[in-house]
Amino acid sequence: MSAKTRMIEVRENVLKQNDIVARELRRKFHDAGVFVVSMVSSPGAGKTALLENTLTRLRQECRVAALVGDLATENDAARLARSQAPVKQIITGTVCHLEAAMIDRALEGWKLDELDFLFLENVGNMVCPSSYDLGEDLRLVLMSVTEGEDKPLKYPTIFNSADVALITKIDLATAVEFDATAANRNIQAVRPGMAILDVSVKSGAGLDEFLDFLRARRADAQTVLGARAAT
Amino acid sequence: MSAKTRMIEVRENVLKQNDIVARELRRKFHDAGVFVVSMVSSPGAGKTALLENTLTRLRQECRVAALVGDLATENDAARLARSQAPVKQIITGTVCHLEAAMIDRALEGWKLDELDFLFLENVGNMVCPSSYDLGEDLRLVLMSVTEGEDKPLKYPTIFNSADVALITKIDLATAVEFDATAANRNIQAVRPGMAILDVSVKSGAGLDEFLDFLRARRADAQTVLGARAAT
Repeated sequence: MSAKTRMIEVRENVLKQNDIVARELRRKFHDAGVFVVSMVSSPGAGKTALLENTLTRLRQECRVAALVGDLATENDAARLARSQAPVKQIITGTVCHLEAAMIDRALEGWKLDELDFLFLENVGNMVCPSSYDLGEDLRLVLMSVTEGEDKPLKYPTIFNSADVALITKIDLATAVEFDATAANRNIQAVRPGMAILDVSVKSGAGLDEFLDFLRARRADAQTVLGARAAT
Repeated sequence: MSAKTRMIEVRENVLKQNDIVARELRRKFHDAGVFVVSMVSSPGAGKTALLENTLTRLRQECRVAALVGDLATENDAARLARSQAPVKQIITGTVCHLEAAMIDRALEGWKLDELDFLFLENVGNMVCPSSYDLGEDLRLVLMSVTEGEDKPLKYPTIFNSADVALITKIDLATAVEFDATAANRNIQAVRPGMAILDVSVKSGAGLDEFLDFLRARRADAQTVLGARAAT
């Protein structure tokens, strides 16, 4: 057996173990009543900027917190701390994605039932994070207008494994001659029916709609869990 | 032994095997007198646009070709074919990086001694490609002004394992309030002495300097190989 074949087998094992931990996490999150949203994208698509804005605004009305993954530096946690929400950095070293066990460890000492929303910001990577369930309720894939409209076709798995697509930095759409029709068509080709939201942290466009969307999804989840608990 | 520990061990094996194939490739490239340049970056940093421009211009004066990696689609090969240079797409499936063996296979049927430059465009990914030697003479890491100045600190290995940094899309620098001083400082912090070139395919800025740089590096390599052959 080649080292390559062995790697694929061992990787399947790691993924299976991740799924077990993720299932356990999801149960914990539901028991605590916290709605968990994860974010994936290329480096520089604007995850941290959107998250800082979201934490700052949601904090006015409910209890929010975030975990943020990077290979190195605590830069993002420092930026997000400006929102005054509890934030913890996960340093992955050379690992190109977050795993459920990293989330589980990072949550030690946090009281989940004192939270309404928990955000998980993944390492900037359009490939590897797609395979790892983190126990989240909602996975957002971000794609900035500067990246090119064909990204969904080139990275189909990350779009397939996400629930919602956010087109970010739309204030730059004209400057980069972004073709929204082509981008939407490519997203729908990879994941038909996917919800798509346009946002710009710089201009503020779409941010109210994004918060409304998060609140509505959380409310839906609470209704489902409430109905299940009542039976 | 955990699946995780086993994965690390098997991964080291795969990397070792890759190094063997890469060494063999490098020998073949040197024997044929072809100068090999690889490109790594985030998705959407502008590798394909720069490569299309470079192939089109270099073709006027010498023999060029390219291999281009993506998880899915032949889009990039189709775009690059407009340069009229020979181009082949490598579809990696779910693999997040190119490997030396993929390059070796893709080169079957090509006469390397009929080429002056061969370009290798990696999968858009700031993490995984850094570990895989492709036998190239020169590795370029691209970072667009829209990605944020702290990327070198957050993805140190990809900058460390590259020879030259290209800051792309500098026509957008003002629109995104790009801080060139901070970006350069962060690159130098991760890899002191690294050459940095600013380019924009849209405005044409820095493209002549980039070609001069490639020609000079190729000439240097030829001199070294010539001196070695003469001894």
